[in-house]
This record gives sequence, C-alpha cells and structure tokens, in this order.
Amino acid sequence: MTLRPPPALLYEELVRAALREDLGRGGDLTTDSIVEAEATAVGRIVARQAGRVAGLEVALSAFRLLDPEAGAQIRVRDGEDAAAGATLAIVSGRARALLAAERTALNLLGRLCGIATATRDLVQAVRPHPARIVCTRKTTPGLRALEKYAVRAGGGHNHRFGLDDAVLIKDNHRVLAGGVRPAVERARRAAGHLVKIEVEVETLAELDEALAAGADAVLLDNLPLDLLRRAVEAIGGRCLAEASGGITPRTVHAVAATGVDVISVGWLTHSAPALDVSFDIDPTV
Amino acid sequence: MTLRPPPALLYEELVRAALREDLGRGGDLTTDSIVEAEATAVGRIVARQAGRVAGLEVALSAFRLLDPEAGAQIRVRDGEDAAAGATLAIVSGRARALLAAERTALNLLGRLCGIATATRDLVQAVRPHPARIVCTRKTTPGLRALEKYAVRAGGGHNHRFGLDDAVLIKDNHRVLAGGVRPAVERARRAAGHLVKIEVEVETLAELDEALAAGADAVLLDNLPLDLLRRAVEAIGGRCLAEASGGITPRTVHAVAATGVDVISVGWLTHSAPALDVSFDIDPTV
Amino acid sequence: MTLRPPPALLYEELVRAALREDLGRGGDLTTDSIVEAEATAVGRIVARQAGRVAGLEVALSAFRLLDPEAGAQIRVRDGEDAAAGATLAIVSGRARALLAAERTALNLLGRLCGIATATRDLVQAVRPHPARIVCTRKTTPGLRALEKYAVRAGGGHNHRFGLDDAVLIKDNHRVLAGGVRPAVERARRAAGHLVKIEVEVETLAELDEALAAGADAVLLDNLPLDLLRRAVEAIGGRCLAEASGGITPRTVHAVAATGVDVISVGWLTHSAPALDVSFDIDPTV
Amino acid sequence: MTLRPPPALLYEELVRAALREDLGRGGDLTTDSIVEAEATAVGRIVARQAGRVAGLEVALSAFRLLDPEAGAQIRVRDGEDAAAGATLAIVSGRARALLAAERTALNLLGRLCGIATATRDLVQAVRPHPARIVCTRKTTPGLRALEKYAVRAGGGHNHRFGLDDAVLIKDNHRVLAGGVRPAVERARRAAGHLVKIEVEVETLAELDEALAAGADAVLLDNLPLDLLRRAVEAIGGRCLAEASGGITPRTVHAVAATGVDVISVGWLTHSAPALDVSFDIDPTV
Amino acid sequence: MTLRPPPALLYEELVRAALREDLGRGGDLTTDSIVEAEATAVGRIVARQAGRVAGLEVALSAFRLLDPEAGAQIRVRDGEDAAAGATLAIVSGRARALLAAERTALNLLGRLCGIATATRDLVQAVRPHPARIVCTRKTTPGLRALEKYAVRAGGGHNHRFGLDDAVLIKDNHRVLAGGVRPAVERARRAAGHLVKIEVEVETLAELDEALAAGADAVLLDNLPLDLLRRAVEAIGGRCLAEASGGITPRTVHAVAATGVDVISVGWLTHSAPALDVSFDIDPTV
Amino acid sequence: MTLRPPPALLYEELVRAALREDLGRGGDLTTDSIVEAEATAVGRIVARQAGRVAGLEVALSAFRLLDPEAGAQIRVRDGEDAAAGATLAIVSGRARALLAAERTALNLLGRLCGIATATRDLVQAVRPHPARIVCTRKTTPGLRALEKYAVRAGGGHNHRFGLDDAVLIKDNHRVLAGGVRPAVERARRAAGHLVKIEVEVETLAELDEALAAGADAVLLDNLPLDLLRRAVEAIGGRCLAEASGGITPRTVHAVAATGVDVISVGWLTHSAPALDVSFDIDPTV
Repeated sequence: MTLRPPPALLYEELVRAALREDLGRGGDLTTDSIVEAEATAVGRIVARQAGRVAGLEVALSAFRLLDPEAGAQIRVRDGEDAAAGATLAIVSGRARALLAAERTALNLLGRLCGIATATRDLVQAVRPHPARIVCTRKTTPGLRALEKYAVRAGGGHNHRFGLDDAVLIKDNHRVLAGGVRPAVERARRAAGHLVKIEVEVETLAELDEALAAGADAVLLDNLPLDLLRRAVEAIGGRCLAEASGGITPRTVHAVAATGVDVISVGWLTHSAPALDVSFDIDPTV
Repeated sequence: MTLRPPPALLYEELVRAALREDLGRGGDLTTDSIVEAEATAVGRIVARQAGRVAGLEVALSAFRLLDPEAGAQIRVRDGEDAAAGATLAIVSGRARALLAAERTALNLLGRLCGIATATRDLVQAVRPHPARIVCTRKTTPGLRALEKYAVRAGGGHNHRFGLDDAVLIKDNHRVLAGGVRPAVERARRAAGHLVKIEVEVETLAELDEALAAGADAVLLDNLPLDLLRRAVEAIGGRCLAEASGGITPRTVHAVAATGVDVISVGWLTHSAPALDVSFDIDPTV
Repeated sequence: MTLRPPPALLYEELVRAALREDLGRGGDLTTDSIVEAEATAVGRIVARQAGRVAGLEVALSAFRLLDPEAGAQIRVRDGEDAAAGATLAIVSGRARALLAAERTALNLLGRLCGIATATRDLVQAVRPHPARIVCTRKTTPGLRALEKYAVRAGGGHNHRFGLDDAVLIKDNHRVLAGGVRPAVERARRAAGHLVKIEVEVETLAELDEALAAGADAVLLDNLPLDLLRRAVEAIGGRCLAEASGGITPRTVHAVAATGVDVISVGWLTHSAPALDVSFDIDPTV
Repeated sequence: MTLRPPPALLYEELVRAALREDLGRGGDLTTDSIVEAEATAVGRIVARQAGRVAGLEVALSAFRLLDPEAGAQIRVRDGEDAAAGATLAIVSGRARALLAAERTALNLLGRLCGIATATRDLVQAVRPHPARIVCTRKTTPGLRALEKYAVRAGGGHNHRFGLDDAVLIKDNHRVLAGGVRPAVERARRAAGHLVKIEVEVETLAELDEALAAGADAVLLDNLPLDLLRRAVEAIGGRCLAEASGGITPRTVHAVAATGVDVISVGWLTHSAPALDVSFDIDPTV
Repeated sequence: MTLRPPPALLYEELVRAALREDLGRGGDLTTDSIVEAEATAVGRIVARQAGRVAGLEVALSAFRLLDPEAGAQIRVRDGEDAAAGATLAIVSGRARALLAAERTALNLLGRLCGIATATRDLVQAVRPHPARIVCTRKTTPGLRALEKYAVRAGGGHNHRFGLDDAVLIKDNHRVLAGGVRPAVERARRAAGHLVKIEVEVETLAELDEALAAGADAVLLDNLPLDLLRRAVEAIGGRCLAEASGGITPRTVHAVAATGVDVISVGWLTHSAPALDVSFDIDPTV
Repeated sequence: MTLRPPPALLYEELVRAALREDLGRGGDLTTDSIVEAEATAVGRIVARQAGRVAGLEVALSAFRLLDPEAGAQIRVRDGEDAAAGATLAIVSGRARALLAAERTALNLLGRLCGIATATRDLVQAVRPHPARIVCTRKTTPGLRALEKYAVRAGGGHNHRFGLDDAVLIKDNHRVLAGGVRPAVERARRAAGHLVKIEVEVETLAELDEALAAGADAVLLDNLPLDLLRRAVEAIGGRCLAEASGGITPRTVHAVAATGVDVISVGWLTHSAPALDVSFDIDPTV
C-alpha cells in the first residue's frame, strides 16, 4: 500500500493554528515591509541531513494555506529515504506567503522526519527478527495522528491511538483492582467484542497470572534479556509478547532476538531529534 | 521575580485538546472498566532523572480538568532543580480521573522539563561570560508559549515570539530585497517605533553593510570562532551581536568567549530529549 | 462497576453549543422579559413515560452552564429504571437560567433515555441467551460518545467507536481488494497488534473464506435464521459471530437462540424514539 | 421557490466534526490498509425505502471534505420523493475518501430524510385543511438548522428557531409571572417591534385571558378535539391558533379539521425514524 | 425588570479571545517582569466622562478569567447613569492578572457604555413622544449580542437580531422579486407563523403597495418630515411605522413628533464614540 | 510597498463568525423566500461619503464565503481615496449569497474605512512635521489585526500589537514597582534582546528618571504643549518621544510641531465613525 498521511481534515486545523501562532496579530513584519505583495518566488525544501521523509504533504499545506495557488513538485515522497542535501520538494507561489509559511512548514517537517528516521533505524536494527517496532502514547499534545503516521513512514507500527481503542492494564490499574485476574475479568465484561486486552507484567509470576486470565497480549516492562527470553518461552505463542522500557538502537537487536513480537519505544515520539531541513529561495528565479 | 507559567488561558485549551485526543470517543476503557467511579487515590509525580522543572502547574491542570476537585501539593517548583527520584508533586482525587489524565500530564511535563534542563545546561556552560542563551521559533506547533516559558525556566531568554514582534532580515529576504540596505530601510519605514531590526549576516562584508544600515542587532550565522571574534570587534558595541548555527553544549562556552551578547539555539525546542517523569499511585492510600 | 458518563470534557462543549444554538444572539426573550433576574426557582425533571435513565448528569450540566450555582438532587441514576411519572431529579437555581436551559437539557435527556430504554428492552429480550446487544456507528453526528454511553446504560455493549479502533472489512472493501483473503492479509500487515479484524460475510462460502483468512470475528449480515445457525456451527468457536441486519425486538430472541455472540442493531442510535421527559417549575416554592 | 439547504457555512463545521469523530486519530484503518491511495471509485447513494429526500447536498459535502475533487450527480433533489431502491446520487472520487466518508454522509442523510418523510406524511394527512405542520425546538443538539430545513423539505414550516426570535409564554412562565396578563404586558414592553407573542393555554378560561391580553397567537396544548373546536370558535380569527400535544399521523387530520392554523409536532425532530439509505461501490468501474 | 447582560455563555468566549489577542504568545511582558507573581492589588474602574453604564459584568469577567479568585464590588450598575469621575467598580486580585486584563476590560466597557450613552440621549430626546429608539444590524462583527444589550441598557429596543428572526424586505429584494406584493406574498408563504414581515418603502406609492400586501410594519427610509407625517396618517394604525435614515440627536425629536412608532438608528452601534473609562491601581493598598 | 491586508488566515474566521452571527440558525428568511436559488445578480459597493479605503478584500471575502464562485472587480484599492459616490467594487454571484452577505461585508468595510479615513486626516494634519501617527491597543475585541491594518491604510503606523511585543511601563506598573528605575531594570533583565522598553511619564522629573534608566522611548502623557516642547528638548534625541492623551484633529498639528517623534491616538480605533458604504443590486442585470 502506498503510504499517505491521514486526511487533511485531521491535521489542517493544526497547521492553521501553527501559522496563526507564528503570524500573531501583525503578520510577518519583516517580509511584508521588504517584499512586494505581487512578487512570486520559487524555493526548495532541502534535507540538510540524510533521513527518512515523513510529513511532506503536511508541510506543503502550510504554504497553500497562505497562498491557495502555491504549487509544489514533490521529489522525495513520504516513506522514502533522502540523502543529505537532497531537495525534497520545490515550491512556487507568492513570495510573501512562502516566507511567512516557511518556519511552520519546516517545524512540522523536521519533527516528523526525525521520528520517521529514528523509527527506520530501529526497524533496520532488528532485522532479521520479525519483531515489530511500535510507538506509544508518549506523543506531543495535538500531534498524535501525525506522529503515529511518521512512525508508519519509518516502517514501524502503531500501538493504541488513545485510551479508547484497546485495554492496557498497567501497574496502577492492578493496584486499584486488587490483582491481574479481577482486572482482566472486569475489562472483558465491559469492553466491546473487538477490544483486545493487554497486561503489563514485571515478573514471571505476574506473567503467569496474566496468561491464566486470558490476556490477548502482555507488556513485558523493563525485563532483562534473560527474563525476556524465559517469558517468551513461558508464553509459548498463547498471546502476543511486547517488550518495553529503555530500549535503545544499541539494545534493540538483542531484545528482538528474544523472540518478542512487538517492541515499543516511547522516545521515538517524545525525544527523537528533528531532522535538519531548510527552505531556500532560488535567487535566480 | 518568581517564575510563573503564562496565564492558564494561554494553555488550557491545549491541555483540553490533548486530553480529548487521548480519551477519544470512548474514554479510558481500561480504567472505567476496572476502577470504581467513587474510588479516590493519591499519586506522586516523580522525576526519574535529575533535571530542571518546568510546566508542573500546566501538567497539574490536566488532572483538574478531569476532576475539578483534585488537589495537589507541589514539592519542586518550576525553575528549580530536581534530583533523580525526586517527588515533584503529590496529587489526590478521583482515581479514574487521575489515571485518565496521567499520560497527558506526563507528556507535557516531560517535554517542558526536557527543554528547561537543556537550557539550564547551556546557561551554566557559558559562565562566567555574560552571553544570554535564547531559543528560536523552531518550536512545536501549538506549544510555542509553553516551550518559550520552559526556556525561561531553564534560565534562558526568548527570541521573537512570532513574526510580528520584531524584524529579522534573513538570507531569503535579502535575496528578494536586493541587498541589506534597502531591506533595512524598508523595514524601518514600515515598522512601528518599538520594533527592533536584526539582520542575519554570513560574512564580515555583510556585517559592515548591516552596521551601516543601522541594524539594532546582527545575527552572525554559522561563523567560525575566529570570525565571530572579529565580528564582535567590528561591531564595537554599536549593536547587539547574536551567534547562531550548530551550537552544542561542548562549543557554547567558546562561542560565549568571543564576546557575543546572545547565543540562539534551535535544538532547545525542536530536539531536546524529554525528561523521564512518571506518575505512581500510592498503593497504601 | 458503577455506570458513569464519560468525563464532562467529552460532552460539555456539545452542551455549550446546544445552549448557544437555542439562545441565539438575544437570549431567552420570553424569560428575560417576564421573570426577575434575582428570582430563584425549583423544578422537577419528570419521566412522563417509563424507561431506562441515561444522561441525567449530562442534562444537569446544561442548567449549571447557565447558573454555576444551580443545585441538583438526583433521584433516579443513569442505568436505573424509572416509572412513568417518576421524578428523576430536582433542580434549584436562578429561575431565568433554569428556564433558558430547560429545552437543551430535555432534548439531550430524552434522546439518551430513549436509546437506553430501547437497548434495555433488547437486552431483556435475548435472555437467557448470552448474546450481547451492541450498537453501531450509525449515531448522531456529534453525539457518538454520549449515544454509545446510553447503550451501555441500557445494558448493551459498544461496537467500534470509530474507524480507527478496529478493522471491519465490508462488502465495499472486498470489492476493492479483490476478495476476503487479500483484504484480511493487508489489514493484518498494517494494523497494530491490539487491533482485531472482523469480516462481513453474506454467504457460507464467504464465511469459510473469512475463517480461513483468520478473522477475529465475522459479521453475518442479513442471514436468515437457519443460515445463521449453520454459520455458528461452521464457526465452531474459532472466532466471534456477530449477527446484524433488520433485527427487531420481536426477532431478537430467535436470533440470539442461534448461538451468535453479538447482535448489532443500528436503529438503537438512529431511530429509537426519545423518552418523553419534562421540567416542571414548582409553583409553591 | 426552489428548496435549498442553508449556506454550507451553517453546517460544514458540523460535517467536519462528524468526520473527525469517526476518523479519530488513526483514520480509516480498514480502508487505508486495504485500498490503494491512488484508487478511484464510483458509488451510488440508494434509498432502501421510499421517502422524501432532504440533506443530499449536506451528505455530499462529507465526501468532498475528504476528497475536494470528488464529483456528484444528483438524481433526486431535496424536497422530491424517492421510490424504494432509487439512486439518489452517484458519487465518484478517491476510493479511500469515499469509504471513509460513507458512514458520516449516510448518518446525516438518513436522519434528514427521515424527518422530511415524516413531515410529508403529516402534511398530506391534513389535506384539504389549510393547517400548517410545524416542528418545535425539540431538535438534536447541534443539528437545529438542518432539522428545521428537513421539515421544510417535507412541506412543513418552522416554529421558532430559538429562544430569541419570538416570545412563547408557557406554563412555567405564567407561574413565575403570576398570570397571563402581566406576562404578556412585560413581554410586549421588552420585546422588539418585530417580535410576536404567543401564549400557551390549557383551558378556555386561559384562552380568554390570552385573547384579552392581546396575544398574537395561542398554543392550545393537549386539548381534546371538542375543546379545540370551541377554542377556534372563541378565537374567531383574532389571533393564530396552534394545536400541540400528542398529535400522531392518525389524529392529525381530525385536529386540522377543528380549524386550527398551525399544528406543531415535536416528534418530527426527536423521534422520527431515519430513512434507510446505503452507499454501494460499483464493482464494475 | 432588572437589566442583566445575556448569559456569560454568550460572551465569555469573546472575552477569552480578546484576552488571547492581547496576551499573544508571551503574555504581559511588562507586568510579568516588573510585578511579583504573589503581589495583590486593588483598583478602581472609573468613568472619566459622565454616561450610561453597560457591560460592567462583561468587563469584570476579563479580570476573573485571568484570576478566578478576583473580587469585585459594583458601584454603578448596568442601566444606571454615572457622573464624570465616578467609580463604577472596585476590583481586587492578583496584581499581574489585573494589569494584564485591564485593557481588554476597558475596551469592552468603553464601547458598551458609549452605545448605552448615545442611546439614552436619543431616548430622552424623543420625550414625550412614544416612539421607540431601536438599533439595527450595523453592529461590530462578533459583538452583536453585547451591543444589542447596550442599546437596551440605554433604554432603547432591539430590531432584528439577525437574518432569521423576521422578514425585512428592502430595496434589493424588491428589485429581485419584481415588486412589493410578490415579495410579501412569497415571504408569507414561506415564513413561520411567528415571523413578522416589514417592508422598506421610499415613496407613498410604495407605502400603499406595502399596506395592500398586508405588511406588519413599514420602514420609512430617508423620508423628509412632511412625508413622514403623511405616511403615518396614511398608515392609520394598520401597521407599525418605523423611520430610519440619517437621524441625529438634533433631528430625532422632530421625527418622533411625526407619530412614527419606531426610530431606528444605525450609528448607535457603528459609530457611537466609546465612553472614556480607566482602571487605576490604588497605591495605598 | 503595496498595501495588503494580513493573510486571510488571520481574519477569515472572524468573517465566518460574523456571517454565522447574522444568519443564525434559519439563514436569511427574507431572501430565501423571495429570491430564486438559481438567480444571479451584480451589485456595487459604493462609498456614500468620501474617505480612505481599507478592508475591501476583507469585505469581499464575506461574499465568497457564501458563494465560492462569486467574482469581484476592485475599483478603488485599500490605501486609496474614494470620492463620495464612488464605486469601490463590483460583485457578481448568486443573488441569495450576495444579499445574505451584504450586511456583514458592509459592517466590516465601513468600520475599517472609518479608521483609515480618520488616520489619513491626522497624518495630513501633521505635515510637514515628521511625527508619525500611531494607534494604540484600544481596539475592538477580535478585530485588532484588521484595525491595525486600517491604520496603516490611512498612512499611520502601529504601536504594540499586544502585551508581548514590547515593554510599556505605565503608571500602574510604576506604583507596583516602586519607581521607574527598578521597573526599567527588571524589564531589561527579563525581556528578550529585541524588545524595546518605553516608559510613560507625566512630569519632567519622571522624564529625567526614565532617561537615566535608559528607556528606548518615553510616552509623554497628557502634557500641555509647552511642557511637551521642553520634554523634547530635554530628551535631545537620546530616545524616542511619543505624545499621547486627548489629541484631536485640531490639536495634532501643534503637538507635532513640538518635535515629538510619535503621536498616539486611541480614538482612531475606539471611536472613529464608520464610513457610510452601501451595496446596491444593479436592477438592469
């Protein structure tokens, strides 16, 4: 399937808000006083570092929101890799609009490419093991749909989109429910028939309890490698095994080698550095 | 002056939106099926790493938006340093609300503490030089007010809040204006009397042009240390000198030693890793 | 678990919008010209018909949004049955606010009680069979969270909350994918590990195909009772069986008797008649 | 006059919100994983039952909001009758967009056609009497403009759009004002010169009081047919006579025969069942 | 009846937006850098000119939105007259919040008092004639509810709140309808039974046509006094007579003396000068 | 530089809201019942008074929001002067849309032209002195960006856009800071390097204090002409001198003659009368 960002309806309001945040009440003082209203320009979006592209159409929407007639040629598509210095897209339109939208476009693009690149690196690092790399709900407020998409652009998969699309019983829930079994039972009684139930476990004893309760998946949180391996064995395919907790590019291969099905990594969305991208007006046009 | 976040009016809508993004249409399936509606709980917000605190009141607002009667004791205030393992605040209220708000609160807090911590480290690194550390407009869409605040919590200062509060003539503007001098003149004619004009320069020749045009500040972009030093000399206090471009914790002291007034660092807001924070329900209460 | 509506954050904006829709730009012309600003009043929310209550706290929020100091005593809680003529709640506050909010409160309450009552009737009708009654995505635009909640208040369960919390492969998808098998395979490859896959089938041949493809659930659409029974047999517990299509209070017991796990009913949310509720000011107070 | 829905400005935000409610944060998981991004498709909106059409352009806007280039041919216009099985419109565009918008479009269309159809049936039932069928403020929160329009599409008329476009003195107002006369007098003093005043009456004595006070219209609430007839006589054309309360398709003709000018029916908007409509992708295109 | 502003629900979002417009992304730079976060203060809202008060509670909401615990004592209520120099209210709360909200509060208050004062002057000028002073739809975008309220605070009445609460057939409509009679007939057929129909006329011939068509009111636009007088005679109480067009405080008495029922004045809302109001921190507290 | 309004993104939401405020829930009752849905029309926007044009594109957006295919020919551009009776623009499109948008368009245009015209008159009155005419923050809630733009269209300049783009130390701040010097020092420490600091002074002694503290500008508030002159002398070019307080078209020339750099005038935005503009459908088209 071709990778495509979610419908513009899911992110356009965010881009509008970002533009308004930057334009304030006075608009682009610099550009409006220096560049003629009628002037047009052509500029390139350039990746200053090598990386995986994500969010290019999202970024281009910033230019179009300020100049509905702005045109764009995409050179590297979301989900593809760009070399350092590569032109990702060429944008043409009213010069004032291009300059006023530049920072908003780049802020979005740099962040999403950063997430996609970090994901790609992890996905490549686990090979040839079949474990999936997934992100968590540790996303930037307001950007979850886009950041989850960037993970997919990097070859990763998505964990829950929010609190309402699956049950994940964590430590805090267990404390309040008085154990894993009653927690799973209550959840099963209440949740819809298409809702899976995952249980976070920190010991093999807890794993047994989760398996006995019939969990669809277990989240093996912060287990050392040998325990992870024993946990995968204990599970024996009866449910999905997800590893999480402090996983880094260096350790991810070893984690995948334990046989877990899924490796979830919070820092993909909360701490991956932005990719360095720029927008350069072509002085010759 | 005591450090305080901007009025809740400037961020509460963001927190609401972040909660809605997580709650979706079904709310917290896990908690609602497992924890009694009447149950109350007490939890601690804990810094798992040492760092500078920022955004605690912002994060606490997430709990209060789901339980208006939730109470909180703040232990470490914004602008103060927390040791690894330190309790930042103790929160009490309806258990369902605390668990449903947890991730939103932590996502905001971790990000803002991460920015404050990175800023603090740079601010300490430039001592005893008087150069200020400032952030840029490379902020997360929708979070500019909060991220700029986190920089202040780290001891840094803020550059422009947006395109409408100062004039910053960059390369793209110069290309379109046909030189620094006409650009500065047009800006001066158009801009209000409380608007300063800064000019980005990449060579000493451009610096001369900017000084001659009467810029209030110059942005010395990506200049090597020796050129920076010569630029500061050439300026001779006639305007403010700002250094930018690829500045890292390792290089920042040397940059400050050149005598520049301001050092701007984009990655403070686009790439600083989040601080690791958690929320732990107290099982004994 | 005690039944509770979703957090006010998920519906308060809807109630505000409904109040604004009714107040227009001039407010309540009638009340404002007839009732003194200082006057207070007490009124009863009454069920004119017997039914299952849902949405009482939601409805009360309308009064509080116009008079933050309005008080309420709830007499019949969400999820409980009310007799015809029963007082559901007693509300006190500024008379102008109570009268201006009345219609908005009743419009919400009547609709949600109507859904809960219809659901309850179906749930009772399937006894003693274990089949669950579930609603669909055929909800009123803007009210999905509340209508899904009303179904739970009636003893029913919820199907998907939206397009992003499970995969449901329908006829249109099969047409475009070129068959059930490729559709299921593509979905499995793309969807997260906590996402279940359900397939709509209209014949036993399609059922076989879905089972072979490893669907987590099948939606048996508009099958006559004997085919439903044979389908349940064919499934033999390998996945969940959901019946749908034209199910009425009269036919639901027979459908449940076929052994299906889930019965989905669209008209619960798109066509259930509102329960008749009124608000009567107490003339003696 | 040709029937037309209100300007898109009055409903487009509702349609956007409905789409977002369905798409959540992850979009259409099923379609996005199964159907190619570039694939186009053609589908028919079909009335599975006979009925009066309303809201077709509103429903089509859902498709266009996800694919701005989607095309549509309308076959049966708002205000016209459709036979069972009739194609109302043919829609073409990107397959992903059509499938993702389908449910939102149908939810709106089914509801509005349901209201129009129920209204049409009442309008036809009162013939040859001149009484108008009107709806009330018992509408779905957020959908008042559209539901009032659907009533017009059914041949009915609209009562007040909200609390600020006419005065309607009800029982609760009379209690608080201390009688009909003071209530009408106060309203006349306060209200604008284009605001009519209607008074709800339940007895002939109250009717006399309302007539004496100079009401522009009286709402004869829940009066038996013989009393209705006597009330119409007593009014003698001095003001408009509106009947309301428990009016059904079976009783409406007799009510109209009493000579009332207006018959208001709450269930048109709160309880009319949705018309069954579907969207079928054409497998041959 | 005591005068009261519309429910806060109808204006609070406007006040929030106005505060955000002023606070931008950085908040009140001046106050936040100069005044301690914990400092409290007391200030007076003072009328620097004599005038009629309107909007005091609206203005006070600005302070409370920044400091929910701010207190206020109202000294002169909406609808009362204030002498020059009079204290309208005393406000106490956090000093930062008071200073940051000051301009927003005063901008709203000055404008609304200005409208109320101008209205009061006209109302007094028409005495002892019974003609009502009414405003038009020439209001400030976003402030209609409040400006209409300010007119009422000045003793005036409101014309239509918008395009949907009465029919007003103007010149442009007549052109497109092909005459007054067809226009009135079409409107009567379409509009609800509580909707009045007014017709703008510019000559006595047009007046006759409007009367013959059964208009509920006529708008005598820009008629000289003698024609106005003849028009009132011609109407003979058959419908309401409204005068409009270039009416000033000097001419209004003479217009009222012609016997018209209503005098509408656009400049009350589009051009009345703001009342000069200030906020002074008490240096002794 | 050609004068252009800020990007539509900064005002379109305001125009939408203004249209919704006027259309209510029922739309334009008059037009929709009288004018055929298919009818098209051509109309002229006419200046009934001579004045400076501002906001024409803003006003035209109202027509386009109701009829995306509406066309417009602009005859007099923003920033140009129009004679009384001049056609500013010719608009064509669906007749219903033109009539429904008319009032919203004119309300915006009249207000903005009124501000531009008043500004132009002041700008011309100060000639040949170089003093700039600037507006203040005394703007209409929600319209600041547009009203500041109208001032520029009149040849004026803008003071602060809000509380976050410069420091302005007023009387209330001085009271709370304990003097001008500590206030300026605290502000300099906290504010960014591109933020100027202005100090309001009412006496020459305070002026000295402000100069000594190094203010970038001083606001000479309500000083009589001779004191203004002495203040300008005392400043001697060390900082910018701004005069304010009760300046009228009659006094502005004399104020400018004192040598101040800037003259700020609050009534430009809070009390300038609207320019009289109309929209006339062409009966011959």
